[in-house]
Amino acid sequence: MVESKTLQFSSQGNCDIIDITSQVGRAVHDSSVDSGTVTVFIIGSTAGVTTVEYESGLVGDLKKLFERIAPKNIPYGHDERWGDGNGHSHVRASLLGSSLVVPFEGKQLMLGTWQQIIVVDFDNRPRNRTVQLQIMGE
Amino acid sequence: MVESKTLQFSSQGNCDIIDITSQVGRAVHDSSVDSGTVTVFIIGSTAGVTTVEYESGLVGDLKKLFERIAPKNIPYGHDERWGDGNGHSHVRASLLGSSLVVPFEGKQLMLGTWQQIIVVDFDNRPRNRTVQLQIMGE
Amino acid sequence: MVESKTLQFSSQGNCDIIDITSQVGRAVHDSSVDSGTVTVFIIGSTAGVTTVEYESGLVGDLKKLFERIAPKNIPYGHDERWGDGNGHSHVRASLLGSSLVVPFEGKQLMLGTWQQIIVVDFDNRPRNRTVQLQIMGE
Repeated sequence: MVESKTLQFSSQGNCDIIDITSQVGRAVHDSSVDSGTVTVFIIGSTAGVTTVEYESGLVGDLKKLFERIAPKNIPYGHDERWGDGNGHSHVRASLLGSSLVVPFEGKQLMLGTWQQIIVVDFDNRPRNRTVQLQIMGE
Repeated sequence: MVESKTLQFSSQGNCDIIDITSQVGRAVHDSSVDSGTVTVFIIGSTAGVTTVEYESGLVGDLKKLFERIAPKNIPYGHDERWGDGNGHSHVRASLLGSSLVVPFEGKQLMLGTWQQIIVVDFDNRPRNRTVQLQIMGE
Repeated sequence: MVESKTLQFSSQGNCDIIDITSQVGRAVHDSSVDSGTVTVFIIGSTAGVTTVEYESGLVGDLKKLFERIAPKNIPYGHDERWGDGNGHSHVRASLLGSSLVVPFEGKQLMLGTWQQIIVVDFDNRPRNRTVQLQIMGE
């Protein structure tokens, strides 16, 4: 069995970190699949998905991590060619990755207590975002 | 078809790197699924999963990589708020990611010869760890 | 339903970045699965998979990102033990990850317009590469 669900939300960009755990959990709960996996896929090339303990300290720490490894204010070939000013956003997104797959049983996500599903929007401006969920199993 | 399997083991933390390839392979072999994917998901927010050529040189090199990009001894907002001292563990785990999906055929994982499945435990203390496997296919 | 497909291609190594979107899309289109996920798995321990806006500026930017976080010319324990000279290739691959899962509907990949599926070959020499696709759904 396969059930698709689209999540839509707005973000502020600039490393905005959005907790989508409850929406993913509700989609699984409301589906007709009891046991399986939910694929969480962020559409677009300037955002990524992962898990984190979602609290304000770590939200800031994650932003600093990405600023260390892919700083905003260094030259990017993407910006030279296209003038978008978001070269850093793209390479951060590629490194973090666009898919996450979470198992569930009895319609319950098998996450740790302090493990939330997040979208990190690296773009340099507010965006409307779409996450595609694919719920598969039996 | 969906079959779930839980792997449990202890780790030393502090970037302990544990090769779980044989356990994942055995779970697939012992399942009733012949062809499909196994989702390898680490429960918790201070560890990640990936693949590596598991040999002692690279095990040390990986630890050094994470120390370069998310050093232990810099300030973390998480530590200031909660005093856990494991801010670096959390951001490393979020960057590495908590899910890996490996295809299999004829109950054999389709890994390279030198490609092993590992859990990296970034926490700052020994932990008991749980990996959830979701084996899906036909 | 599960359908497997193997993609084979040659790469130049040294952070060669190969766009495999059209091959993945064709495999899904030619399968008998209408809705589900395709798991994209790179076999081997010196390459990874992710998504990017595939244009020459970003291709160069991604190479620079990996050179910053895992430089070629620092000592690696792997090279000291085995003399392969590709310690940097291995740790970059482990960080990027070997699996990506992309949802599809009506046999169409649900990617963004500027979001392509890529293999990054970090090895220090030309290689023949194999990507295993597992197409699952209904």
